[in-house]
Amino acid sequence: MKIVRIEDLTGGEREVISPAGWTSFRFLLKSDNMGFSMHETVFPPGLEVQMWYKNHLEAVYCYQGTGEITDLETDEKHDIKPGTLYALDKHDRHILKAHTELRLVCTFNPPVTGREIHDKDGAYALPEQNEES
Amino acid sequence: MKIVRIEDLTGGEREVISPAGWTSFRFLLKSDNMGFSMHETVFPPGLEVQMWYKNHLEAVYCYQGTGEITDLETDEKHDIKPGTLYALDKHDRHILKAHTELRLVCTFNPPVTGREIHDKDGAYALPEQNEES
Repeated sequence: MKIVRIEDLTGGEREVISPAGWTSFRFLLKSDNMGFSMHETVFPPGLEVQMWYKNHLEAVYCYQGTGEITDLETDEKHDIKPGTLYALDKHDRHILKAHTELRLVCTFNPPVTGREIHDKDGAYALPEQNEES
Repeated sequence: MKIVRIEDLTGGEREVISPAGWTSFRFLLKSDNMGFSMHETVFPPGLEVQMWYKNHLEAVYCYQGTGEITDLETDEKHDIKPGTLYALDKHDRHILKAHTELRLVCTFNPPVTGREIHDKDGAYALPEQNEES
């Protein structure tokens, strides 16, 4: 059994502070051998980020804050509030915007290694692609 | 993209109310094709349940409430509070107890189908085993 506490991640290499403005706490990564990774991501009020996880499936559960997600495949907008989950089951290009601070629990399949950064498309590369670069 | 809201699950077949006293909202199941399932589980104050997921890996993120988990392999107890995640990476037998109402975001690999119930060991059977029974 592994116990991971947010206060133990804060300030370490598993606290990823993006230049875009979000912060992600990597509770579980590929090396934890769960077959998925699990993060908590904090989106500050007003932040708007375009993403496209070409290589991963991601599900995001909001437990705090309000915002909206725009599905760039359809241009539909959906409200995000506590108790809303969105699943990018088709590697959907999207924009996430926070109205108030969003606290999001995110699961990725395949698991991320922790070394990924968003590329120009807003994607995370797979480990093999990282190793080539 | 799938959007799932807790209010849409309430009262439907994806709201699983256990005879033991917990309630689980099945946001994503095997049929959602994410490669994992993702649930929100509510443990009322005082509830104590022994579990043993022999067939699944599970990670649980607490965002509300306090409680404790006992690792039955080692008899160690760990406090649960907002910002704590536990990962049953060795199919660890455990007891979860809520001091105040726990709100837990749970990811299972492999994904559960939604039809599982805890067996006498506190495990979920795999779909193949369900079909045999």
